[in-house]
Amino acid sequence: MLHPDRLFDPDPTRRALARQLYESIKDLPIISPHGHVDPRLFADPNATFGDPVALFILPDHYVTRMLYSQGIPLEELSLPPLPAGEGPGVRSRSIWRIFCANFHLFRATPSGLWLRHELSEVFGIDELPSAANADRLYDQITEKLASPAFSPRALFERFNIEVLATTDAATDTLEHHQAIRASGWPGRVIPTFRPDGVVNLDTPNWKAKIERLSAVSGVNVVDYVSFLRALEQRREFFKSLGAVATDHAALTPATAEISRQEANRLFQRALRGQADAADAARFTAHMLMEMARMSIEDGLVMQLHPGSWRNHNRLVFERFGSDRGGDIPIQTEFTRNLLPLLNKYGNDPRLTLIVFTLDESTYSRELAPLAGHYPALKLGPPWWFHDSPNGIRRYFDQVMETAGLYNTVGFNDDTRAFCSIPARHDVWRRLAADWVAGLVARHLVDLDEAHDMMTELTIGLARRAYRL
Amino acid sequence: MLHPDRLFDPDPTRRALARQLYESIKDLPIISPHGHVDPRLFADPNATFGDPVALFILPDHYVTRMLYSQGIPLEELSLPPLPAGEGPGVRSRSIWRIFCANFHLFRATPSGLWLRHELSEVFGIDELPSAANADRLYDQITEKLASPAFSPRALFERFNIEVLATTDAATDTLEHHQAIRASGWPGRVIPTFRPDGVVNLDTPNWKAKIERLSAVSGVNVVDYVSFLRALEQRREFFKSLGAVATDHAALTPATAEISRQEANRLFQRALRGQADAADAARFTAHMLMEMARMSIEDGLVMQLHPGSWRNHNRLVFERFGSDRGGDIPIQTEFTRNLLPLLNKYGNDPRLTLIVFTLDESTYSRELAPLAGHYPALKLGPPWWFHDSPNGIRRYFDQVMETAGLYNTVGFNDDTRAFCSIPARHDVWRRLAADWVAGLVARHLVDLDEAHDMMTELTIGLARRAYRL
Amino acid sequence: MLHPDRLFDPDPTRRALARQLYESIKDLPIISPHGHVDPRLFADPNATFGDPVALFILPDHYVTRMLYSQGIPLEELSLPPLPAGEGPGVRSRSIWRIFCANFHLFRATPSGLWLRHELSEVFGIDELPSAANADRLYDQITEKLASPAFSPRALFERFNIEVLATTDAATDTLEHHQAIRASGWPGRVIPTFRPDGVVNLDTPNWKAKIERLSAVSGVNVVDYVSFLRALEQRREFFKSLGAVATDHAALTPATAEISRQEANRLFQRALRGQADAADAARFTAHMLMEMARMSIEDGLVMQLHPGSWRNHNRLVFERFGSDRGGDIPIQTEFTRNLLPLLNKYGNDPRLTLIVFTLDESTYSRELAPLAGHYPALKLGPPWWFHDSPNGIRRYFDQVMETAGLYNTVGFNDDTRAFCSIPARHDVWRRLAADWVAGLVARHLVDLDEAHDMMTELTIGLARRAYRL
Repeated sequence: MLHPDRLFDPDPTRRALARQLYESIKDLPIISPHGHVDPRLFADPNATFGDPVALFILPDHYVTRMLYSQGIPLEELSLPPLPAGEGPGVRSRSIWRIFCANFHLFRATPSGLWLRHELSEVFGIDELPSAANADRLYDQITEKLASPAFSPRALFERFNIEVLATTDAATDTLEHHQAIRASGWPGRVIPTFRPDGVVNLDTPNWKAKIERLSAVSGVNVVDYVSFLRALEQRREFFKSLGAVATDHAALTPATAEISRQEANRLFQRALRGQADAADAARFTAHMLMEMARMSIEDGLVMQLHPGSWRNHNRLVFERFGSDRGGDIPIQTEFTRNLLPLLNKYGNDPRLTLIVFTLDESTYSRELAPLAGHYPALKLGPPWWFHDSPNGIRRYFDQVMETAGLYNTVGFNDDTRAFCSIPARHDVWRRLAADWVAGLVARHLVDLDEAHDMMTELTIGLARRAYRL
Repeated sequence: MLHPDRLFDPDPTRRALARQLYESIKDLPIISPHGHVDPRLFADPNATFGDPVALFILPDHYVTRMLYSQGIPLEELSLPPLPAGEGPGVRSRSIWRIFCANFHLFRATPSGLWLRHELSEVFGIDELPSAANADRLYDQITEKLASPAFSPRALFERFNIEVLATTDAATDTLEHHQAIRASGWPGRVIPTFRPDGVVNLDTPNWKAKIERLSAVSGVNVVDYVSFLRALEQRREFFKSLGAVATDHAALTPATAEISRQEANRLFQRALRGQADAADAARFTAHMLMEMARMSIEDGLVMQLHPGSWRNHNRLVFERFGSDRGGDIPIQTEFTRNLLPLLNKYGNDPRLTLIVFTLDESTYSRELAPLAGHYPALKLGPPWWFHDSPNGIRRYFDQVMETAGLYNTVGFNDDTRAFCSIPARHDVWRRLAADWVAGLVARHLVDLDEAHDMMTELTIGLARRAYRL
Repeated sequence: MLHPDRLFDPDPTRRALARQLYESIKDLPIISPHGHVDPRLFADPNATFGDPVALFILPDHYVTRMLYSQGIPLEELSLPPLPAGEGPGVRSRSIWRIFCANFHLFRATPSGLWLRHELSEVFGIDELPSAANADRLYDQITEKLASPAFSPRALFERFNIEVLATTDAATDTLEHHQAIRASGWPGRVIPTFRPDGVVNLDTPNWKAKIERLSAVSGVNVVDYVSFLRALEQRREFFKSLGAVATDHAALTPATAEISRQEANRLFQRALRGQADAADAARFTAHMLMEMARMSIEDGLVMQLHPGSWRNHNRLVFERFGSDRGGDIPIQTEFTRNLLPLLNKYGNDPRLTLIVFTLDESTYSRELAPLAGHYPALKLGPPWWFHDSPNGIRRYFDQVMETAGLYNTVGFNDDTRAFCSIPARHDVWRRLAADWVAGLVARHLVDLDEAHDMMTELTIGLARRAYRL
């Protein structure tokens, strides 16, 4: 099911080069500096993944959205709340059957590619799922998952993961990270500081989050100054548990500095429940400036992920919550929006700001020119929908000539689906090899340079950018 | 002139696969669910195409725009009104000579590709037009066109067209469609309901069109409620003559529901000749919602084609009318614009909304994520300028990974130029084969899957999406 | 270091065709109708390029921006003001060492490609710069630059340049162009009229420039009418020294005609130092209309380069001035913005308006459809960041099918770095050969057509579009 030359261009010259380049780096450890795996998996040495549905389907909105788009109701893809002590049983098997019977929907999609890789490499299954083999596959996988060799920690080691960063709210107490450290297990799982919930004034239940921020930080957050102090406290706390980076989502990458007085007025208005959408946008734009300042002071790398319209499908959101495939990208503008931040901090060598986009038209127009100029700015890898064979190809095509390879940061898997991590890194490594092979085949770089570029793309750029 | 491997990638592995995949589907019937051929051609069993200019040049603004862009006056490419009973004669031959002498302008364009295909496959001409052979080709083609084997009906059968949809105004009486049915000829030519002329309040002569709507529907349109009733009547009438779909053009894909009271106020203002541009935009956005509602009720598939700035060249429009090459695309935004419609109807399995774009930057950013989530939404094939070898390649590249093949609808030829239909479908089929061959050559799908995908791309997706 | 097949696709069929097509045109003369080389170089028969830093680094913001983006301070890449009579010496060598030690930063960038070409083809150096060979290369190049064979005029002849256009302010006296003519040297170096400094009311020191315009034109510029007269005088003066074109930069391509009265009001307001940003934008939009009118009258080809946000990095601008890599593209809109100009002048065969873009999303959406319709409009080659192997490939891919080859204008090198001219044209010619070879290999054009297209891409289109 997995051809050794998969994803390589069929031209024999280029393919031979790609194979050689890929071979030279394929066994390097996985650096995963940005992702969404649940740290709880590694806190308990006896944790398991449960069954195939809990592993492959429930946590993966790439999978459920595709099934939903073809008219399969989300009700049929969800587990109802179960009586205490009762396993998912029959219901889970029914979801698995739907998934297998519809496996053709994933043809030519990255999900299809990752799923094949996981089934084959992780579980030794070398047939495509179908209505006919659904039950047999279910049993095979379930049996494997019950064995110690398939515990999260065992797979972490088998996957050769050097470091795995999770993403955690500013208000998180990081108890699972603490448990991992306390357990003596050597796997490096580190948190990432994501303060969106308290920074974006229009987050649902914002005020409750601020109260929680007070509680966990020990700083009584009553105004803008105490809010900043609490954030600084949390950043230090995250650093103490290994964090190297922060992460910020925003509808747009707008940045703009306002006075501390005005920031406080907006904050107070929010505390009184009176902040409107314009207030929230203004405050977020300002807080991105503050976050850059704090990064310069404490050395945490800053990541910015703008441009996703969250929960576009209100009905699905109301019935099934977030992360069901209803987040849709919007046009994004960086040149004007990042101007204030870059003018204030973009020349400061202490800052590393890594920017991501869902709007590929910004690659060659805005982001590559910006990353190819400002010392503080680096361009993150292809994100979300664009973490795909063609998306990665377009990224190499549209970014590298202008930004320069060395102003990029290697790969992020950005996933909740732990078992897809090796698959995703493998796709990146293969496409990186194919890209560099194309440069060699067209005589733009020589083979020595090519090998050096491969090491950078696999581990060097990520280690340096994230200060690992 | 037509190489059997044309349009296939030159890599031998990929080409061999492409050839094999193409061979397996090339003789399948043509499904043409969206186009602009004049139904009159098939109503009269004795209709002919006239001469080469009437066939190849006059109805094809792709051809005239290119000649005009190079400084050839449109006067030299147009037939003046002729005295009754007099044929185009000398003047037509002069247009043909200009076309042949400038055939190099179509190098590497899709028009050039289609024209070569038509000349060779339909007329057996295997030399490129030039000043030297213009007269000879004119005579050859004219002679053929006069023979029964080149009548529209004969070519319809020779082209192996299973179904051909035309596009017709809401006020059209469909007399040609009725004549086709009455004639007993088995060719399936069906109308498509396009209500733009009455829905867009700023259409020239809108009020006269409303009066005509009253006349043909038998509903006296005096307010918004009677307007809706008249539209419903027309939809039923179109369905009775085989229609399966509606088609809607709008400058933007804005959708927004207003109250029936407000809709009526806007409608009344338009009846009094007082509606302004903002009123018209608001009404169109609302009517798209109403059209989706009616589609859910009557089962007609809804098509939306936004983003063309019509008649950009005022001078050409005033002297020569519409459809002379002066329609220019604009930036288009779907995520926000479709939100109201998708939130109200996007989860309803009874609706099929097929969206097209002239702004390719929306493929990977907006349309593929939307189509890969909402059950009601499908993504139409590359449209207009993008119905070209590179345009089709970009579509496969940028759409399929995220939308999934099964959320697309196969091909539309969208043409007024009847004889170009087989050429256009052949280009699509060849590029589909080349795309799928690339997936097989890179080991992303296997050959069984590939054959299944080819059948879908050729007939399956179109038949299901358009409920044919 | 320079493989004879570089930049050609590795597929053997396509590569053999590309090689054959490239061979047939590679020795044709260089037409350089748009660039920024300093004419002073050719005015003095004894001019030299100085040292490798003065040649390769100081005038090339593509090079300095990349070094700066990786944290190398611009101070370390700049020459301080030197005492009279003292050469750059030690400081220059230190800059060269930094450049060589960081040569890997240019991997897979167009700068890297051009630099390799220059080192090898112009200076006979066939090793990549590195920390180890920096001093040796410095000495080798310096020695060569001192010899008469490496004088600007000698290289101009060796490069086989048929015509080289510079870019000159409206207020320039063109003394170097006059000196070149007076010297009897046969090299054709011609000025290009660029009036941005006086047309854009918000240019720094605008009023001083207007005074200078009065002085050089002999027209006392006191109002809008005398301003137009002065511009007409300068255009005539430029023409008398061989100019064939004008060049215009603007933040957006907005065009709009205002009354002469209103134009005069804006102009008077600017003379009093009271014009604001909106006034300046309005006046620029109007002046683009006036420039088109003057082009129709005097026959100068009009070039428009919108969409660059100049001096985005304020700190760098204040310390080091313009052209240090801090110009960043913005989204650009042409369909609506060019409407007024194209409606008034776009059908006039006397006008040639060549439009460039930094926003590649406009290629297939706006510019190709516009250029494929309006007789006056042509599409310029890929500009700035997009003058790169992938940028050129995307241009061919996204422009040609809709615009048609004959509505494009060949290549511009657009460079300040004189020695990179052959490298840049060579990249274009190779990629043109590779593109056309791809068309032949996929049987879209035959070999005769291919050869004809190559000649057009190399010299024909440029000569005709620029009326050379």
